[in-house]
Amino acid sequence: MKALKDRILKDGRCFPGGILKVDNFINHQMDPILMKSMAVEFVRRFAGTKINKILTVEASGIAPAIMVGYLLELPVVFAKKCKPSTMENMLVTEVFSFTKNQTYTICVSKDYLQSGDKVLFIDDFLANGNAGKGMIDLVKQADAELVGMGFLIEKDFQKGGEMLRQTGIHVESLAVIESLDNCEIKLKDI
Amino acid sequence: MKALKDRILKDGRCFPGGILKVDNFINHQMDPILMKSMAVEFVRRFAGTKINKILTVEASGIAPAIMVGYLLELPVVFAKKCKPSTMENMLVTEVFSFTKNQTYTICVSKDYLQSGDKVLFIDDFLANGNAGKGMIDLVKQADAELVGMGFLIEKDFQKGGEMLRQTGIHVESLAVIESLDNCEIKLKDI
Repeated sequence: MKALKDRILKDGRCFPGGILKVDNFINHQMDPILMKSMAVEFVRRFAGTKINKILTVEASGIAPAIMVGYLLELPVVFAKKCKPSTMENMLVTEVFSFTKNQTYTICVSKDYLQSGDKVLFIDDFLANGNAGKGMIDLVKQADAELVGMGFLIEKDFQKGGEMLRQTGIHVESLAVIESLDNCEIKLKDI
Repeated sequence: MKALKDRILKDGRCFPGGILKVDNFINHQMDPILMKSMAVEFVRRFAGTKINKILTVEASGIAPAIMVGYLLELPVVFAKKCKPSTMENMLVTEVFSFTKNQTYTICVSKDYLQSGDKVLFIDDFLANGNAGKGMIDLVKQADAELVGMGFLIEKDFQKGGEMLRQTGIHVESLAVIESLDNCEIKLKDI
């Protein structure tokens, strides 16, 4: 998606260790007009898919997910980072974050992810795919169906996209980073 | 705002200790169409106000804030719950949460909250006003101007609204809970 790729090249900041910061327009300060355009692009890419619910995970997934839900007029559920004390009536899974080097527990209420749901998962980044794996687990526990996963930015040099696609899930990323070597942002020409 | 008040009476759930859960349409599952309508109402209520930035705090504030930012075509910044290790270039404040009975640290990058900014703060709940106080502190540290605070739901029987209005800030709440005594939701007739 050209507008996103241009913005990454303009405002993305690269740090040693394959870190890309997009704090200026996605992860801390957000550009709502770009968010809406990205949501429109997700609608287009999942046009042939039957969806009745958008799923995301706090916090950076909420803005793109609510825009997709707004366009499609569908409820949006955000999975929460939760503590054992608050897990009543919850579906629970563990996610390991490479960025933060820690495992956290995420959960979704059984009231809002149910058997028969056709779920589109939306998130900001696809890197190692650990959050994605966690979502697959939650959707499976609910006996719902994961009909697609849409990410704003995929890091192609980490292996999450490959892993998720191999499971047969329809995965879409609006911009794909080929490499961040020598702190230079190289985007895949898609 | 009638649509929100009706929805609270329909889907809000009351628990002992003055707790109102709106997990069905705001705090866990979200209704994006209602979110947009609430954002339109904020635009109306702050129509006379010069604003160049929307500020909120993760996670439940993000959805209403991005909708307001989308309508007004303004950047949206969400303050983060942060750890000491990530505080470089950050404005930092402490917020005590009565609901969770703990103090947490929230921060905003100095890059995204700056001198001269005219900030509208948007959040889901106004109860004791502690998050609001934290925001006042962050905006003051940045030498920016807090031109208004908009909340989806205010609990009138807790004293946050009174405290914030006494400082002279323009505070708007789209629905005001008069009492939750005996687990009955009583809305103020405004």
